[in-house]
Amino acid sequence: MKLEQLKLSEEPVPIRGLFSIGDADRLPCRLAFEYNAFDTAAVEAELSSRAFAPAGRLLNFNSLDSFKALDKQAFADQLGAELLSSIRSGEALHRPARLLEFSILSYVDLKKYHFYYWLCMPVLAFPPEISPVLLSNASLAESAAVSGGQDLSRFADRVLEFFATSGRCPYFAVRGLDQAGWLGLQAQHCTFGYADPSTDSRAAGWPLRNLLVLLAHHWPGEDDRFQSGQRTCSHSRLMRVRVPGAASSAGAAFRCLGWEKSPSPGSGRAVLQPRFVDLSASLSPDRLAESAVDLNLQLMRWRLVPELNLSSLAATRCLLLGAGTLGCNVARLLMGWGVRNITLVDNGQVSYSNPVRQSLFTFADSQHQPGGKLKAEAAAKALIDIFPGVNAQWRCFQIPMPGHAIPRDQEASVGQDVAQLESLVAEHDVVFLLLDSREARWLPTLLAASAGKLAMNAALGFDSYLVMRHGLGPGSRHGCYFCSDVTAPGNSSQDRTLDQQCTVTRPGLAMIAAGLLVELMVSALQHPAGPTVDPDNVDAAADDDRPPMGRVPHQVRGFLSDASQMSPVGHRFDRCSACSDAVLSAYRSGGYRGFLLKVFNDSSHLELVAGLAELHAEAELSVEVLEMDADDDDF
Amino acid sequence: MKLEQLKLSEEPVPIRGLFSIGDADRLPCRLAFEYNAFDTAAVEAELSSRAFAPAGRLLNFNSLDSFKALDKQAFADQLGAELLSSIRSGEALHRPARLLEFSILSYVDLKKYHFYYWLCMPVLAFPPEISPVLLSNASLAESAAVSGGQDLSRFADRVLEFFATSGRCPYFAVRGLDQAGWLGLQAQHCTFGYADPSTDSRAAGWPLRNLLVLLAHHWPGEDDRFQSGQRTCSHSRLMRVRVPGAASSAGAAFRCLGWEKSPSPGSGRAVLQPRFVDLSASLSPDRLAESAVDLNLQLMRWRLVPELNLSSLAATRCLLLGAGTLGCNVARLLMGWGVRNITLVDNGQVSYSNPVRQSLFTFADSQHQPGGKLKAEAAAKALIDIFPGVNAQWRCFQIPMPGHAIPRDQEASVGQDVAQLESLVAEHDVVFLLLDSREARWLPTLLAASAGKLAMNAALGFDSYLVMRHGLGPGSRHGCYFCSDVTAPGNSSQDRTLDQQCTVTRPGLAMIAAGLLVELMVSALQHPAGPTVDPDNVDAAADDDRPPMGRVPHQVRGFLSDASQMSPVGHRFDRCSACSDAVLSAYRSGGYRGFLLKVFNDSSHLELVAGLAELHAEAELSVEVLEMDADDDDF
Repeated sequence: MKLEQLKLSEEPVPIRGLFSIGDADRLPCRLAFEYNAFDTAAVEAELSSRAFAPAGRLLNFNSLDSFKALDKQAFADQLGAELLSSIRSGEALHRPARLLEFSILSYVDLKKYHFYYWLCMPVLAFPPEISPVLLSNASLAESAAVSGGQDLSRFADRVLEFFATSGRCPYFAVRGLDQAGWLGLQAQHCTFGYADPSTDSRAAGWPLRNLLVLLAHHWPGEDDRFQSGQRTCSHSRLMRVRVPGAASSAGAAFRCLGWEKSPSPGSGRAVLQPRFVDLSASLSPDRLAESAVDLNLQLMRWRLVPELNLSSLAATRCLLLGAGTLGCNVARLLMGWGVRNITLVDNGQVSYSNPVRQSLFTFADSQHQPGGKLKAEAAAKALIDIFPGVNAQWRCFQIPMPGHAIPRDQEASVGQDVAQLESLVAEHDVVFLLLDSREARWLPTLLAASAGKLAMNAALGFDSYLVMRHGLGPGSRHGCYFCSDVTAPGNSSQDRTLDQQCTVTRPGLAMIAAGLLVELMVSALQHPAGPTVDPDNVDAAADDDRPPMGRVPHQVRGFLSDASQMSPVGHRFDRCSACSDAVLSAYRSGGYRGFLLKVFNDSSHLELVAGLAELHAEAELSVEVLEMDADDDDF
Repeated sequence: MKLEQLKLSEEPVPIRGLFSIGDADRLPCRLAFEYNAFDTAAVEAELSSRAFAPAGRLLNFNSLDSFKALDKQAFADQLGAELLSSIRSGEALHRPARLLEFSILSYVDLKKYHFYYWLCMPVLAFPPEISPVLLSNASLAESAAVSGGQDLSRFADRVLEFFATSGRCPYFAVRGLDQAGWLGLQAQHCTFGYADPSTDSRAAGWPLRNLLVLLAHHWPGEDDRFQSGQRTCSHSRLMRVRVPGAASSAGAAFRCLGWEKSPSPGSGRAVLQPRFVDLSASLSPDRLAESAVDLNLQLMRWRLVPELNLSSLAATRCLLLGAGTLGCNVARLLMGWGVRNITLVDNGQVSYSNPVRQSLFTFADSQHQPGGKLKAEAAAKALIDIFPGVNAQWRCFQIPMPGHAIPRDQEASVGQDVAQLESLVAEHDVVFLLLDSREARWLPTLLAASAGKLAMNAALGFDSYLVMRHGLGPGSRHGCYFCSDVTAPGNSSQDRTLDQQCTVTRPGLAMIAAGLLVELMVSALQHPAGPTVDPDNVDAAADDDRPPMGRVPHQVRGFLSDASQMSPVGHRFDRCSACSDAVLSAYRSGGYRGFLLKVFNDSSHLELVAGLAELHAEAELSVEVLEMDADDDDF
């Protein structure tokens, strides 16, 4: 409740306690709080015929300091003064539940599952000079025998009937033993009764105390009262009490008591102090981890982003293509945001140089023979080691690429890889492109655009980075990674020197890009307009219409060499080699064998389909590809 | 060599082979390459009296594709043509080592420790129509017996003497058996000899082949030659060969052979193909990891940052104060940069919510009872799990803070903590401030400024970040974290609500800030002017004077809400509460009890010392502290 509903509010929260007149002997006289204590309707609906539910309020403090700082005596005095005023005015006569109203102060350390609480059940104490006097105390049966053997069973029926019809008012008046009704039943000649949780025949329970004060104010003199017990009335007692006249002495100094004592840890002696419960030991570690993870996120909603929708974020299914430096960091950040469904795809193995840059692997993973553990598998297992509640899946296959010809005997198996990737894209909400080459991003860009799934893309240079969200294909004004190019991606891995094959990037870049990319995804998903939100319109939004997580740029490009960053918008290109209508429709009609395979075997086919070849011919264009080198590696 | 010296160069590299005339029978006829093959002087200095070191060149290709693409026959033909021309011109007569020159093609996959190489020892083959004819082949001793029992031992002395005085020329001429000298010794009436590595009496070694071609060009006719063996000459043989006249037929079609055959993996049959060695299995995993880690970094020096000084970076000792979200990420990135000495300080334990954000911990760390593993210890151990070569140390103690009063009975132990922190600052080169509150950064800022150590600072807001390098105290124009404030740091942890106690930051921020911070440190340390480089002067630097890792800003502030980033310069403030002269001198003269303890107990003492109190009085300043909320948490 604190996390999700109350947040920073310290307003009193209504709460219902519970006491019963059916408790077994020797049980302490209890006010209990059930799992549904905050739900008045539920508490009332589930009340047994012998139970009563006094109303109270919970004051939950935001800090232990303020919990401690509250002046407890002044707090009780204030409650007592209000109660006395209600008694004097007669309000409590018409609404006797008022006599049982309580307060609970609490402070909850949600980091440690430590609960501090202190019950205050305000009871008014008679000044010594006008204390009531107990004249007799006998079981009801005995008293009835003395008074002539009346039918106690019929009487018990009457009382239970009153409880049932009065909305479980615990206070009542009795005339003879035939009639039970509201306190004011018959002013001068009745016996007052109440439902008493005490199981000790020598001691009355706390509900008597404020009743006596009420009686002293309204019917001073000599009074009877009985304790209503089980159906047989065998436990009920009749006490004769001389109640002093208090109404006349308006200034009579009633003190207010009521702070519950609790056993001192040392002596076991009951002292005035709050109770403390450490629930961390009672919770399963998995559940603790789960709620602790959510805690950080839920706290964002207290003050900063009340409209943050965490459950939709948790349910988002993320497909990570590439489990290298970017993939590991992105997966970690998604878990930090509470995302519970993560699937990793990689065809590589953990090499010796990986663990210092790829944050889900250890040296032991690279030692695993032959050739190191599978990256996708090791990454998924590491995610579970970090947070057992995550649903982390993995697949090991290579993503086919334009210009990387498929030998004939591999056509069938590559077809299966393509089909697998198509299924994965369909089964997820967001597709992350964290691959090690430009051409590896082509197929997933196309598939995401075709399926209308959000694609998030990151690419690293030596000291620069690019993160972007792709447009969602037709209908989107902003484009994809390939929209800025007038050549189709081809085989860039041929004849490359070692430094071109490896990740030669400043190590900090992958963290920066992963951080920006995941935050960009969250901003996009949390935007009221959704991931299709037009980046061009962002600045036009009025200030009071500010999206929950800030603006949602199309792309962010950053340069370490001068610590600069910019967020341009790239528009959708009608001859894009990955997301143009022509390419999408060629894919849809041709499928693997009719289209994709041709592109893998010869990327110039792609330029033909996209209309880029035509463009080249028309313009005799001197092609200069302005692109950032994509390199999260497989190294 | 490739990584550190050659880098991208494909220029031929001189290399020396080695063959011996002392090999035991049955050993194959070998050209060997020793550990010092690239060091001509060393090879020559260590040559035994029976060994010879032909000179060659290594052609190491940058890619396997270009290695494969080279036209091998054309390459050999070219070498053959050059050799033939040298023979015809007589150059080889004066420099007979020319007859043994070889080439090696190679390609090294430094990621996998795969080595491809192929030796080409060009030998000229006579055209069939003018092949030399072997007339006889007998041991030298036999031949000597036939020719009258001459003193073979004295002859052997002569030959060895020639080898020693000729700079180990393997070719010589003999007159009688008394004299051995240069090939041209006595044109018509001598016997030619050479050092032959062959141990097979029926077959001459390869050095004979080009010698015959040389003889055919310069002394055609009938010739003797003997094979010089051990000191006793028992292995030496005398062969009589009819050498055709080749000099006359200038156009004679000598073919060039020489590509070494190697056993085919299947049949074992020798075929024309390069040799391949996988050395990864021969190296210890720890060493492999170490060199793999360095590989990525060394590759930066090939093309992008030739002046990058990796060894100074590796030797940098980094002290990380705080092992939370920022601390874990910073430690990982330092390892990515090859930093080998990392010490972590934290007084916390791993809680359930930590692992999803703090990248060195797992769920198991938080389950460790009671209360989770110590963060600093768990982080240091995780670093070693990632890279066994790192020297990761840890300390668990709390950093005392202004306004956090020290109870009298803890004064001594807090004094020890302060002394420990002073020692740590002295023992390290860079101090990272990755703490969870503003006031926790005060003492380390002061200590770093006093010791003249570089302090790197990162702080996170909900969706903003600050990273900065502190000025190095007096003499520095740019300031520290506290230079922008006109109040001293005080106790900010009192009466804070849960969301104020915890890290309520967008999860991506810590990675972004850690990435920028570590890159800023590297840029500063690699700058020719060092970490004191004045950020104001950066833009004034001429383009050709561009520092190796780009400009070195004083601080970078970024805002996720609009994807913006800026890098302002904050100047040193003469009343700064952490690095001003007054504060530094109060610390130096007062030490722990005379200054620090007073500040911990009452931060207004600090304002007095720094002159801030005076400033407030002077200006009746309405204090508005513009600061970013510092929160990498302890949560």
